[in-house]
Amino acid sequence: MNKTVCALIAVLAITSPLLHPPSSTAAEPGRPQIVSPEVKADRTVVFRLLAPKVTQAAVNGEFGGRQPMTKDDSGLWSATVGPLDPDIYSYTFDVDGVQTVDPRNGYVKTGRSTTSLVQVPGESPTFYDAREIPHGAVTVQWYPSKSLGTLRRMHVYTPPGYDAARGAKLPVLYLLHGSGDDDSGWTWIGRANFIADNLIAEHKARPMVIVMPMGHAAPPPKPGEGAEAYIRNAAAFQDDLLKEVMPFVEKHYRVATDAAHTAIAGLSMGGGQSLAVGLKHPDRFAWIGAFSSGGNLRGKTDDLLADAKDMNQKLRLLWLACGKQDFLFKVNEQFDALLTERQITHEFHVTEGTHTWRLWRPYLREFLGKIFKEKAKS
Amino acid sequence: MNKTVCALIAVLAITSPLLHPPSSTAAEPGRPQIVSPEVKADRTVVFRLLAPKVTQAAVNGEFGGRQPMTKDDSGLWSATVGPLDPDIYSYTFDVDGVQTVDPRNGYVKTGRSTTSLVQVPGESPTFYDAREIPHGAVTVQWYPSKSLGTLRRMHVYTPPGYDAARGAKLPVLYLLHGSGDDDSGWTWIGRANFIADNLIAEHKARPMVIVMPMGHAAPPPKPGEGAEAYIRNAAAFQDDLLKEVMPFVEKHYRVATDAAHTAIAGLSMGGGQSLAVGLKHPDRFAWIGAFSSGGNLRGKTDDLLADAKDMNQKLRLLWLACGKQDFLFKVNEQFDALLTERQITHEFHVTEGTHTWRLWRPYLREFLGKIFKEKAKS
Repeated sequence: MNKTVCALIAVLAITSPLLHPPSSTAAEPGRPQIVSPEVKADRTVVFRLLAPKVTQAAVNGEFGGRQPMTKDDSGLWSATVGPLDPDIYSYTFDVDGVQTVDPRNGYVKTGRSTTSLVQVPGESPTFYDAREIPHGAVTVQWYPSKSLGTLRRMHVYTPPGYDAARGAKLPVLYLLHGSGDDDSGWTWIGRANFIADNLIAEHKARPMVIVMPMGHAAPPPKPGEGAEAYIRNAAAFQDDLLKEVMPFVEKHYRVATDAAHTAIAGLSMGGGQSLAVGLKHPDRFAWIGAFSSGGNLRGKTDDLLADAKDMNQKLRLLWLACGKQDFLFKVNEQFDALLTERQITHEFHVTEGTHTWRLWRPYLREFLGKIFKEKAKS
Repeated sequence: MNKTVCALIAVLAITSPLLHPPSSTAAEPGRPQIVSPEVKADRTVVFRLLAPKVTQAAVNGEFGGRQPMTKDDSGLWSATVGPLDPDIYSYTFDVDGVQTVDPRNGYVKTGRSTTSLVQVPGESPTFYDAREIPHGAVTVQWYPSKSLGTLRRMHVYTPPGYDAARGAKLPVLYLLHGSGDDDSGWTWIGRANFIADNLIAEHKARPMVIVMPMGHAAPPPKPGEGAEAYIRNAAAFQDDLLKEVMPFVEKHYRVATDAAHTAIAGLSMGGGQSLAVGLKHPDRFAWIGAFSSGGNLRGKTDDLLADAKDMNQKLRLLWLACGKQDFLFKVNEQFDALLTERQITHEFHVTEGTHTWRLWRPYLREFLGKIFKEKAKS
């Protein structure tokens, strides 16, 4: 392929319909053609909403809070934000007090809540963009769970060139979502597949299978419930993971089964689950990642370390990460201190930022670059 | 598994998070717990929206047009519709003139527009529900398209027990989405995978691979453009399908490559594409399905039949379907008449209904039951 085509692909990769459905930008009869969001060359973003009858409108986004929109004579509301750092931002419109998606934007985050997404591209494709390199696939896999008495779903990433029939067994990462998402979140919002593709192409991560199970296994928290709901959920999830998901994956995918080639990591609720399951089963998982963790980490953290004996011999990596402005920073900091006090080897990666996907994509990149390395143990 | 567990699975299959993310039903601090939609036992559905500042609200749905909502003293709007026939319905809220999703409902349809979905279950699981039977998988597959100069995406259904390495080659259906959707639509909205699983379990369809490519290949229609935009798009799509998608699938999946084991079908825009590509390439596709077709069918239909010589010898099935109340019914009826006039063997399946997924799921079931049958040709 020549350079022009490569450059074209680089640009298209960011905006192409493969990453998100085409927006509804065709004009409807009798209505002006409204584009929203519009990402300008200077990285400002214009949001627009045709709503003549509405008396108050604003945009709320991960770019820093609520920004009022102003209405012109035709009833078109708009607001400009930025310039923004290149990244993917979640946002909603506030329409007379109702939170809604941007009706002109087909790029949405689904899960417990539905929000709109906008990518502000940088000069060149970044670590989560689809580039002109070999790509893996993501399989949506249904499986019967006897533990939970229902059919369940997981997403499974297989790396470029994966062949179910031939080759060595691959290391496997179990990657868990947060309470607001489901098993599709790490692919569609987190772009775990493209992050892995890019690292593998650069030889910065080993080819691996990434299993993204559904983390909701018990009813959601009741009003007023805190950590106990997450602890109950994690117990049900652990049963499903160890008794159903892992045997299913080990039967149907070409994956290694020893702890040295098995990792578990997750974000928020999934970070708490990774600690709850991983620290209790160091014979199954030698690599643990906990990003902006909540859930179980908000309960009695001593319980997480009940089986901490020999942990340093068994674990290859225990990696915590959290943003300083995250509402969960304090519990993460406390757990870091507890691990230090108990002399459990670990890393605590502290960054700027709050409790959003803007941190979890780079955390995953960091973590994938660290696991399954065959470094000598002293 | 005992009968109780089976019954539990049957019930859970309809409402379980595997089919859609859990709704945001946990109460937020200081706000009442609002459930929307609520499907009652009598198959009425209550929609609710907390919006004290809004002056007018309504629900618009596939259950029959716009229904005003009424506000109580707390600012909670609600409307009750039905009783409704068991089915899956798309709907939006109209909030002071702005179309929005239901903020309490995590079950959404994405694509060019984002709408909420609600399933009204019947007495027992139906043909598109996940039942306690073996399930296939759906792989999200990226591939480089030289024709289009970009990375593209497709969804690929493989049937229960599919083994990439072993067994006979399977027949393959290329299944195309409509203009409002993307390559994920047939899975997440259409439930093609569960429809196929159920038919295969009942021996009413042959195990097959179903390839669901991205149908948007050219820029969307410009204001005022009609069929010509779809014809331009279908030409670009055809290049991608024949030169990229099919060779990729034939290399990476265990599929037959002869016309007798290759089908093409689609809905709306995808129906037009199926006719445009299929009728020009009867040496590649012996089975063609066109559901509620638009796009190319709204152009010069004579062009579709330019290569109609020997069509009856080559095609095993040419199956049109349309709802009588569809805005595209007339062009489908006219094409049926043209085929009859030209003595081209075909079926025209006419049903009640408009231009919605409520028809396309049953059309797919019908079509899957007809294709790849080894009936004797006279």
